[in-house]
Amino acid sequence: MDVKLRAARKEDCREICRMVMELAVFEKMPDQVKISHEELERDGFCQNPLFECIVAEVPEEHQSRGFAVVGYALYFYTYSTWKGPSAYLEDLYVMPEFRGKGIGKGLLSKVAEVVKKKGCARLQMSVLEWNTKAQNLYASKGAQDLTVSEGWHAMRFEGQHLDNLAGEAPKE
Amino acid sequence: MDVKLRAARKEDCREICRMVMELAVFEKMPDQVKISHEELERDGFCQNPLFECIVAEVPEEHQSRGFAVVGYALYFYTYSTWKGPSAYLEDLYVMPEFRGKGIGKGLLSKVAEVVKKKGCARLQMSVLEWNTKAQNLYASKGAQDLTVSEGWHAMRFEGQHLDNLAGEAPKE
Repeated sequence: MDVKLRAARKEDCREICRMVMELAVFEKMPDQVKISHEELERDGFCQNPLFECIVAEVPEEHQSRGFAVVGYALYFYTYSTWKGPSAYLEDLYVMPEFRGKGIGKGLLSKVAEVVKKKGCARLQMSVLEWNTKAQNLYASKGAQDLTVSEGWHAMRFEGQHLDNLAGEAPKE
Repeated sequence: MDVKLRAARKEDCREICRMVMELAVFEKMPDQVKISHEELERDGFCQNPLFECIVAEVPEEHQSRGFAVVGYALYFYTYSTWKGPSAYLEDLYVMPEFRGKGIGKGLLSKVAEVVKKKGCARLQMSVLEWNTKAQNLYASKGAQDLTVSEGWHAMRFEGQHLDNLAGEAPKE
């Protein structure tokens, strides 16, 4: 199948937002999604965008449920105090009916190509323990599971806890 | 003790670089550090900085080994497709002889305050499994261990694997 991978445009945000929710449903945490397509437009398509995105597009005859955009990879730039400029792949998603055709692998490679060109030494991502399919894709391309090999755990402050923490900051 | 927390300046990069290495030694991975203070200066103190940093400074009479800067918190802005603008605390470090005085907690709160003001919904970080002291600090302030509660693993491509992956990107 003829699949085109291209940089997302502002007008793709409705479709990206739809797929963000589909991915969250797959990950069994749909209640956590609070984003709107307007926010994605504002944050990703401004002077200093907070993220970049590549979408996978199929020709009209292959469209599913009327959607031409059938997958996406959303990433942003980070920093490693050990290696310098790096990148983080926040989401990688392909609609179920388009899986098994190498689209996910294509999106992943495309992100790697873009961030390499920008001088990033690392590309990181998070994967759920039970999502062996994603783990196998990453591992087959040489990714290291840092939680297993080095013992890293992900921690998060949000909501009231983040507010409280901020409120405890020493005053000048 | 009178400890001042302030935004890092370009001229702090030598001291930050020294502490990056001290932290890596503590984390038992000093071989992974490839950064120089020149790179920190270039990446953190330019038009669109790749990170921000807060340092803890002590008055002359309390200086250890001649250092006025005795701790740092280095962070950058990220993006959550579930919650929007977020932040990541890459490093939090206080020199051994200055621990137990609330400096780490002060740096952490200060980062929370800064990123909250910038509209971040989340502050994330990674912690090593055996580093119970750091885990306890984060947990005592309400951080959630996402690796335990939701099963997230951190994955990374770097070096030859990242090069290979980038080389496999579909051509136009």
